[in-house]
Amino acid sequence: MENVMTNKAIISMLTANTREKQAKLIESAFGLFRKHSFQRVTIEEICSVARVSKVTFYRYYSGKEELILFILRLFVDDISGRIEGILKSTISIKDKLDRISMLKQKLVTDLGEEITGGMMNIPAARQYAEGLNERIWEEFQNLLQTEQAKGKINPNLDIHKSIQFIRALGNMLGDNSFKGIYNSTEEMISQVNELLVMGLLERGKTE
Amino acid sequence: MENVMTNKAIISMLTANTREKQAKLIESAFGLFRKHSFQRVTIEEICSVARVSKVTFYRYYSGKEELILFILRLFVDDISGRIEGILKSTISIKDKLDRISMLKQKLVTDLGEEITGGMMNIPAARQYAEGLNERIWEEFQNLLQTEQAKGKINPNLDIHKSIQFIRALGNMLGDNSFKGIYNSTEEMISQVNELLVMGLLERGKTE
Repeated sequence: MENVMTNKAIISMLTANTREKQAKLIESAFGLFRKHSFQRVTIEEICSVARVSKVTFYRYYSGKEELILFILRLFVDDISGRIEGILKSTISIKDKLDRISMLKQKLVTDLGEEITGGMMNIPAARQYAEGLNERIWEEFQNLLQTEQAKGKINPNLDIHKSIQFIRALGNMLGDNSFKGIYNSTEEMISQVNELLVMGLLERGKTE
Repeated sequence: MENVMTNKAIISMLTANTREKQAKLIESAFGLFRKHSFQRVTIEEICSVARVSKVTFYRYYSGKEELILFILRLFVDDISGRIEGILKSTISIKDKLDRISMLKQKLVTDLGEEITGGMMNIPAARQYAEGLNERIWEEFQNLLQTEQAKGKINPNLDIHKSIQFIRALGNMLGDNSFKGIYNSTEEMISQVNELLVMGLLERGKTE
């Protein structure tokens, strides 16, 4: 399983693309947001850790919210690229789903509770994350409907309802009733995807 | 879909097997328990509706609890017989699961909220229902493990964990997040079983 972009990876990416001061601001803010709550961290603290003046900060960002949105977009751009790569690769549909599920899982872990929780209180970030989530599910639904028309997806399934079911299930997989069953998140994703994609019956069997 | 034993069916069964007075007691008690809470209904009321003396009541049952346990066992015996019939029939595994899921669903509906809720407060009834539930799942797990050894079940699935997953999922299917997706309980059972048994991919496809 590939690693989702780490803090270090962000910086290496940024120093190649943007100026060093901005990279320092991102690095400092990410570290502070991850450790303390987004709401508590001040622009002064970010600047102090980054050794950058407040004037420089405001040259790039209108405030903390714009900065956290920028960080969120960095992660998402990186993940989107990885997802595209996975979808284009020649591995099985089951393996594709496993990798994409793991990426989504790791995105949450890498951002950390403080950042993901904090983002829910920032309307713009929340809207961005929710919009992205909607688009991914919509694309997945379109893909399944196209493949069903081609005879590659179980013709007895109502795709729209199945997607709603899988989404609802996905939201519940972190619950204690499910978590206790598996040894790890990886095993849970692999086994649940296996059941949903391949089914209980051996593939040669239709009865 | 066959109908689970109705109130009328109990009586017709009982008059064939047991004495008329006992049948009247069962019928009256079932009607009263279903309408009011088990806890509120008195033995006097049951006897009054059944037009049977309290002496006769105590000839058959030590109290209300023994009576509700007797009713519960009548339902369960009937359902067990039906499940055996379904398992032995030549319909597909998916159809078998649909019918068994529907029977379980209808058992709850037929007993009614007052009776099922009331039973949870009677240790003996609760134990009986939970024990039965455990046995059914255990048998289902044994069946899947035997079939997996014969190559008829997806070899990539950990059967023990899959059963735990399906049980946890089953407990959640009544939740609002799932209920809103489907037009009826029948549709929900049929679509979810289709996904779990057959999988998302068309059966000819293994990739």
